[in-house]
Amino acid sequence: MSRWALGVDLGGTAVKLAVIDEQGRVLDHERHPTRVGSGPEGIVRQIASRGFSMYNCFKERLVGELFAGIGLGAPGAVDSRKGILSYPPNLPGWEQYPLKNRLQKVLSSEYSLDCPLILENDANIAACGEAVFGAGKKFDDFMMVTLGTGVGGGVILNRKLYRGSSGTAGEIGYMTVDYRGGSVHAGVRGTVESLIGKKGIVAMGVEIYRANPPESWSEEFHGKELGSLSPRTLEKAAHHGDPLAIEVWNKVGAVLGVGLAGVVALMDIRKFVIGGGISGAGNLIFSPAFAQIKASTLPSMHDGLEVVPAALGNRAGVYGAAARCFSSIE
Amino acid sequence: MSRWALGVDLGGTAVKLAVIDEQGRVLDHERHPTRVGSGPEGIVRQIASRGFSMYNCFKERLVGELFAGIGLGAPGAVDSRKGILSYPPNLPGWEQYPLKNRLQKVLSSEYSLDCPLILENDANIAACGEAVFGAGKKFDDFMMVTLGTGVGGGVILNRKLYRGSSGTAGEIGYMTVDYRGGSVHAGVRGTVESLIGKKGIVAMGVEIYRANPPESWSEEFHGKELGSLSPRTLEKAAHHGDPLAIEVWNKVGAVLGVGLAGVVALMDIRKFVIGGGISGAGNLIFSPAFAQIKASTLPSMHDGLEVVPAALGNRAGVYGAAARCFSSIE
Repeated sequence: MSRWALGVDLGGTAVKLAVIDEQGRVLDHERHPTRVGSGPEGIVRQIASRGFSMYNCFKERLVGELFAGIGLGAPGAVDSRKGILSYPPNLPGWEQYPLKNRLQKVLSSEYSLDCPLILENDANIAACGEAVFGAGKKFDDFMMVTLGTGVGGGVILNRKLYRGSSGTAGEIGYMTVDYRGGSVHAGVRGTVESLIGKKGIVAMGVEIYRANPPESWSEEFHGKELGSLSPRTLEKAAHHGDPLAIEVWNKVGAVLGVGLAGVVALMDIRKFVIGGGISGAGNLIFSPAFAQIKASTLPSMHDGLEVVPAALGNRAGVYGAAARCFSSIE
Repeated sequence: MSRWALGVDLGGTAVKLAVIDEQGRVLDHERHPTRVGSGPEGIVRQIASRGFSMYNCFKERLVGELFAGIGLGAPGAVDSRKGILSYPPNLPGWEQYPLKNRLQKVLSSEYSLDCPLILENDANIAACGEAVFGAGKKFDDFMMVTLGTGVGGGVILNRKLYRGSSGTAGEIGYMTVDYRGGSVHAGVRGTVESLIGKKGIVAMGVEIYRANPPESWSEEFHGKELGSLSPRTLEKAAHHGDPLAIEVWNKVGAVLGVGLAGVVALMDIRKFVIGGGISGAGNLIFSPAFAQIKASTLPSMHDGLEVVPAALGNRAGVYGAAARCFSSIE
């Protein structure tokens, strides 16, 4: 019997929902601004209401097929066994919240929907999505790295999600690569995220442009304050051949490569799937990252190294949430 | 039926052998200078000859007990399934060598001894030793770190050895923590080993003493060239209260802590067992390392953090080799 599931990706900006079948077909999808101001209870109601409506619509269309449940990815530390979300960034006021139980209760009492519900960290669930439906399909072991506002990661070992004992594994953004350096994020010095999270990339860009006379800047930045600099403008400038922008991306790639080299050394993982908005810069990042992994590891660790772009874009979360319901990746 | 095994620890300086029973009792042990000059074949004969002699002696004493086999730990990259040792440091001329098959053949043809034989990387096998018989007994997940000439590591997850897909996991010495720094080891910049391997510690010490007038040096170094500086003399000087030596150990501990913080972030491992000759400096290293792990991770990652000294000293290798034969740790 064919199966389908509802994947939900809760973020600080948007809640995405999608109906996805076991073959990876997206049958429907929605995107709503997250009702951050309404607190955890408001957001639970938002997810329950939209989720039930989509479920209800497809329940009738997909007669004879099995509804496998609802998968939910959320930012922050997730105890997926207990269903508790702790301190999600960008969702102020949540602290520790029994998200799974609350959602289950609202779905049951208000919509009479009782179904399997799975809660997972968003970076981990994106890794599941790429593993089952995306660029990680061909790898038994790989790390998914998400480059965006922050730098997150999820690890798949032997086709299973590796969570670690407290569920916080894969935090490549918190690996320190420059312990004496000046960059600090969330109180920790010299981490990958402090250097190449969105703010870090902008700071790196501003520093490099400032160190050079405005005449040498590409036209992207002519007559503008450097305040307009963003990963997007840096990407455009680099594609137009601006050597300063290319220098920024080389440095971003090198920092990423140093972090990935640590993953190679520590976990013996040689395959990396890179996603997230910033990864749109493509080979501007991938080429220097790959070169740096090699420079920062022993030759005996180079066999089989691959750095590939993610395939699911900003739908990796809903794909992974659905994939978890089919339990092919646990 | 009670079982016993022969644990062998092949190093660049010495071959250690021990007869160990399932309760962790060392019934006999020997230590011989490694016949490095005789190449792989000579060393295989050395291990076979001494190993058989110990086996033969105990076979008669331990009538009614089961001989579980021979475990062998070796430096370098080990493919434990195929039994191949690649590029062991300090054993020049080995390149890739089918150590397990060769040893099995010599034991069988020359000594008529056919028994299970297990080959494992030395850092991994030391982790097994601590897991089964030492300071790791109480932990389900931990990392064993060996501080000596080099910095090695082995990871135990859910009471099983974690090797990674090519068998090189746990190489904390090759994690980069100072990617822009000047220290280089084996061609890689800013690694933990480049900074706090034995040479790195000496370099750090020389730098700190040089930056201060000789009058301020402790009596350990009075009237001596800084060439006499070693981890041992730095340890003595620190125990005598020498502030410069204490500064060196604080820095060593901090670098170790930065590396361990990366392990916390990436693998969600919170327990560390520290062994190797340099770890004799004890709290001179452990205290700053523990403080640095906390400084280099998020508060949400601090629950359950422990850094403890290894319990088996330089016998972790033979203990682990024997433990592998009892297959309690795989």
